[in-house]
Amino acid sequence: MSLKNRDLVTIDDLTNGEIESIFSLSDEMSGSMSQQYGLCRGKVMATIFFEPSTRTRLSFETAMHRLGGSVISVSDPRSTSFSKGESIADMARIVSSYADIIVLRHPWEGTAKLMADYAGVPVINAGDGGHQHPTQTLCDLYTLKKERGDIRGLKIALWGDLKYGRTIHSLIFALAKFGATILFCPSPGLEVPENILRKLVTEYGGELEKFSKNYKQAQTGAFPVDAAYITPGQPHQLAMMPGIDLEVAMKAGVDALYVTRPQKERFTNEERESGQQFPIVDQKLMRGKEFRKALVMHPLPRVDELAYDMDADPRSMYFKQAARGVPVRMALIALLLGAKEALVPEEPVVPKVDYPMYRRGYGVKCSNPRCVTWQETEKNYLKPEFKIVSFNPLTFRCVYCEHGTEPKCVASAEWHQGMVKNKKYHHASSHLAKKIKPENLIAFDLAEEAEAHGFKPGYYAQSPAKKEKPKIG
Amino acid sequence: MSLKNRDLVTIDDLTNGEIESIFSLSDEMSGSMSQQYGLCRGKVMATIFFEPSTRTRLSFETAMHRLGGSVISVSDPRSTSFSKGESIADMARIVSSYADIIVLRHPWEGTAKLMADYAGVPVINAGDGGHQHPTQTLCDLYTLKKERGDIRGLKIALWGDLKYGRTIHSLIFALAKFGATILFCPSPGLEVPENILRKLVTEYGGELEKFSKNYKQAQTGAFPVDAAYITPGQPHQLAMMPGIDLEVAMKAGVDALYVTRPQKERFTNEERESGQQFPIVDQKLMRGKEFRKALVMHPLPRVDELAYDMDADPRSMYFKQAARGVPVRMALIALLLGAKEALVPEEPVVPKVDYPMYRRGYGVKCSNPRCVTWQETEKNYLKPEFKIVSFNPLTFRCVYCEHGTEPKCVASAEWHQGMVKNKKYHHASSHLAKKIKPENLIAFDLAEEAEAHGFKPGYYAQSPAKKEKPKIG
Amino acid sequence: MSLKNRDLVTIDDLTNGEIESIFSLSDEMSGSMSQQYGLCRGKVMATIFFEPSTRTRLSFETAMHRLGGSVISVSDPRSTSFSKGESIADMARIVSSYADIIVLRHPWEGTAKLMADYAGVPVINAGDGGHQHPTQTLCDLYTLKKERGDIRGLKIALWGDLKYGRTIHSLIFALAKFGATILFCPSPGLEVPENILRKLVTEYGGELEKFSKNYKQAQTGAFPVDAAYITPGQPHQLAMMPGIDLEVAMKAGVDALYVTRPQKERFTNEERESGQQFPIVDQKLMRGKEFRKALVMHPLPRVDELAYDMDADPRSMYFKQAARGVPVRMALIALLLGAKEALVPEEPVVPKVDYPMYRRGYGVKCSNPRCVTWQETEKNYLKPEFKIVSFNPLTFRCVYCEHGTEPKCVASAEWHQGMVKNKKYHHASSHLAKKIKPENLIAFDLAEEAEAHGFKPGYYAQSPAKKEKPKIG
Repeated sequence: MSLKNRDLVTIDDLTNGEIESIFSLSDEMSGSMSQQYGLCRGKVMATIFFEPSTRTRLSFETAMHRLGGSVISVSDPRSTSFSKGESIADMARIVSSYADIIVLRHPWEGTAKLMADYAGVPVINAGDGGHQHPTQTLCDLYTLKKERGDIRGLKIALWGDLKYGRTIHSLIFALAKFGATILFCPSPGLEVPENILRKLVTEYGGELEKFSKNYKQAQTGAFPVDAAYITPGQPHQLAMMPGIDLEVAMKAGVDALYVTRPQKERFTNEERESGQQFPIVDQKLMRGKEFRKALVMHPLPRVDELAYDMDADPRSMYFKQAARGVPVRMALIALLLGAKEALVPEEPVVPKVDYPMYRRGYGVKCSNPRCVTWQETEKNYLKPEFKIVSFNPLTFRCVYCEHGTEPKCVASAEWHQGMVKNKKYHHASSHLAKKIKPENLIAFDLAEEAEAHGFKPGYYAQSPAKKEKPKIG
Repeated sequence: MSLKNRDLVTIDDLTNGEIESIFSLSDEMSGSMSQQYGLCRGKVMATIFFEPSTRTRLSFETAMHRLGGSVISVSDPRSTSFSKGESIADMARIVSSYADIIVLRHPWEGTAKLMADYAGVPVINAGDGGHQHPTQTLCDLYTLKKERGDIRGLKIALWGDLKYGRTIHSLIFALAKFGATILFCPSPGLEVPENILRKLVTEYGGELEKFSKNYKQAQTGAFPVDAAYITPGQPHQLAMMPGIDLEVAMKAGVDALYVTRPQKERFTNEERESGQQFPIVDQKLMRGKEFRKALVMHPLPRVDELAYDMDADPRSMYFKQAARGVPVRMALIALLLGAKEALVPEEPVVPKVDYPMYRRGYGVKCSNPRCVTWQETEKNYLKPEFKIVSFNPLTFRCVYCEHGTEPKCVASAEWHQGMVKNKKYHHASSHLAKKIKPENLIAFDLAEEAEAHGFKPGYYAQSPAKKEKPKIG
Repeated sequence: MSLKNRDLVTIDDLTNGEIESIFSLSDEMSGSMSQQYGLCRGKVMATIFFEPSTRTRLSFETAMHRLGGSVISVSDPRSTSFSKGESIADMARIVSSYADIIVLRHPWEGTAKLMADYAGVPVINAGDGGHQHPTQTLCDLYTLKKERGDIRGLKIALWGDLKYGRTIHSLIFALAKFGATILFCPSPGLEVPENILRKLVTEYGGELEKFSKNYKQAQTGAFPVDAAYITPGQPHQLAMMPGIDLEVAMKAGVDALYVTRPQKERFTNEERESGQQFPIVDQKLMRGKEFRKALVMHPLPRVDELAYDMDADPRSMYFKQAARGVPVRMALIALLLGAKEALVPEEPVVPKVDYPMYRRGYGVKCSNPRCVTWQETEKNYLKPEFKIVSFNPLTFRCVYCEHGTEPKCVASAEWHQGMVKNKKYHHASSHLAKKIKPENLIAFDLAEEAEAHGFKPGYYAQSPAKKEKPKIG
């Protein structure tokens, strides 16, 4: 499938074959950088950055200039009409009537998808809150590929802030796609969010194993793995059965240690005030046997979590990762603008699951207050929309920020057929809930929400747990 | 007259013929966008924006890039030397020694003219406070022309904030120039300023009729016209004589409804705190018979005054207006830089009135505190300058911001001829005042000002009204 | 020596021959501006500005655009990853993996050198705190050369804030290099810093004479010279022996009056609150006989120190200085990028003094708290480093900001040879200090610092002055 006129909102938007074709073109670009000038002559890229950035914006702009194109830019949200209360949809329509391609960074999760929905030109997500940052992931994968040849079967340890790091979230799915084994080494309290683990297992298959003794290890400087993910079709290289000592299993070593900065700007007040110390990756740690051949990767900027004594170490890849951002982004831009054509095998390696949708626009709100659907300026026109990713328990996934939400009450459009007296709601975990066809499903976050919409409690309105309590008591 | 090296400060700077020639070139540009690249090769545009903006700045920059030119930009006033206290005159001289053309947005009214006075290259006003925004008006007119063929005789309703909306102020004169009928539908308290109505009637001819029952109508959702302007030479299509019911007259419908955002950033504290509700243009309103064929226009950004339910309506023109900004600005830039030559009939359709000037630099200050002549950094070198637009009552118009000022006292340079004992002042409304030749006129805002300059009260120093009072009392 | 791939951090980085070759190329550039387009086609310049700027940034960007190159830019420190705590070294490595040349402005003194140390591409210092601004100096010198033909023997008066004005600091050394006589006319309290005068005399030779009656003169409007510098090999055109009346000596007049703005943003609180009036350069002052033929120069922006009544005066050069920034910077960029080759005589006119270095990384800190070595983000990897510019008194010069520091205590690595009991320190002014070889020198700011490093006071640990006191008392 051609990449021309496509968006890149999450790493799921690209098949493995498409990613490989971007990498081939990146090789071509970096091999003859000065000959690419003119490839996008006369084309205009808009870089719209609503969060601080240096490398990502400059990297995209450099890529466009090296292709001979032009750039228009908003790098300070306070200097734009957003300060007058403009919506993302309006900005999308306007900017896409000027530019040929849009690169967006925004603090609200899901904004890139919303922009892509309304823009008439390709939109590249350069980071939307804590959600995703797919072009960083392309740079990361490209570096792994250049340094290790093949990603399949590599053991990649993710280290640090796995909760708020959007580069981590994109990378997890990409690694799963390409068959790597992922070792999760979060700082305490900054574990990978549940919605990501759930998507990883349900959509990418594979197995996830959790371990318990990780935090103690973190403090002693040992390898603090709290979980591991092994892609389907992979032999279990690690004997990660419960009860087996992970340290023993790790002797073979990891192939890369991917370090991230604590994203303090997204911390809750509690997290900010916890005064928690974050483990540091330095020469001392890297002398460990398990890291002997490990590439040290980091999306940068770093603060204290990655010591300067690593800079001259041949295992350190972080400056190369950044430098490779230019050819990778050149390739991506050229492909999305149709200035280059990729030859890509048709079928995605991991086919997308085809979930039923919930599009009623009422009853359920995304559970993530950082989601674009919660924002004052967007409420006027934007209705929440969800994939129904599970019926047991009933779980919705926001199509914008991909956070999970579990509505507490349900009804069926078939039951009442417009008759007020039949408008009954039941608990989402009741057996009745499972009988509702997705197209008839009406869901509510809470009973109050259901009643506000004119529904009365049905027989199974309370949670089974609650109902049973009186029987026991 | 060639447009090469000209400035565009107010819409008055362009004759109808010149505007038509910009539109012809805009047609040519949008028809073959990619062939324009290279037309301004090697040229540099400076975009200097001292107020938040997205669309205007990006639109100009896109236009320049599509012509193959380069852009230097200041988009955040805090990141410039202005924070060190630099004057507009200095900036004009400096920036015009770098760039070939300057696009300026500034919160002070009249700044664009001041910049143009000192810059050695063409200056385009991209909005100076609440004064004018002539290139937005070009996009508006171009849209009307593309959608309706001819502007002459169209009925255009202006809706919302007619007080602070600079796009409205430019548009009013442009519509008058091209023979449209204007219906004023202000939000309560946000009526068109007097200085603009005065200029409209005295310089563009035509008739202005005021109505009274508008605000009640606004609240009931009916059509709240508070005044109408009919250009000279137009048959009175509307029977707008006092006593005639406007609603009846409006049955034929309006051709366009031009909506504007309440410019809250320019509101007085009182206006801000009034908690006033602004009428909303939405499907409900637009179902009215009088709007059946009305184009819905808006300079954007919108906040709440224009509902999202209009977006898919074929009458909605606002995204087209924005998109057309690129070819219109490409045409304008190419003409001012001399990269294209316009064939324009010589004479302006509305000849400018040739008012006598008041250039003494003392005695009278512009009545508008937002005027550039009031600013601390400009006072060192900038003297107020006025057109004497009326002698009865004596009325000055600031050449920068175009606000009106009525000096209270006058003297004549002929009277005193340098002799101190003859330095007498009289009231501006006294019969003596009318006898002073413009070149001899010395005017003062107040008696105190006159006395501070060594003038003594003459026999007619008090206002006739005041003088008569004792006779009556 | 070719200028290709060189940095320009201080004006010392260029020999006279190299400066002359930049000027020749500037002449060529300004003579055929439109033919230079394409010279740097496909090249990317990064302008990284961490302090407000208009003219310098826009001038560099214009220069690059006129050469056909592209620009990526950071003009607002708050919109970059620096707000996430990134270091200069990291930024240098990253940005130089994108761009072909970097232009940096930063409030910390010495930052440009640090950036140049870590960047893989040429770095141009566009102002680092109060340290230097060498490209402004090139514009100043170029203007002097164009207007006066030769700089040798010119009498240049430096006026105003000679303490914080970085343009002044660069200019002083350049004038000395080219054999001009410098008259220092500081505003009271804003005299040239000692470290600059010391470097001027020790490295550029020549003589410095100080005068005393200057401030009184400043107040009477007369010529307030507080010191004069005469380059070596120059006849004493002025009889500036103590006791001689300077006013008499000045009758021959000065060739240029270089005015600077009080750099209030760098004032101490005391200086800010002093309410001091700064003398104004205006027509009245310039009617003085000594200024009859004096060029009036100013790096701009001005505030009140240079009156607008000078603008039309043919002696006023400040707008020309600014305008010449474009061809001068075009020439510089083209040479550093290797797009043009300069033919330059090999030997520098003023050979650099070859001082011994102090690189222990402990014991001594730069005395300038604005120095880049003091900054929190840089301490992790950056060790102070000094030139030992004098042994009597022992004086270190920071290699970054060039401020002087006088360590109070010394020891020798030879004395103790790793044996703890021999670790003794002595006072830096003791006779023992002079006997230590530079490569063995261990220096400490204070005795406490020495003791913290395990050194005990030796016999000469106290200052000789202190030691003698008890004998007298």
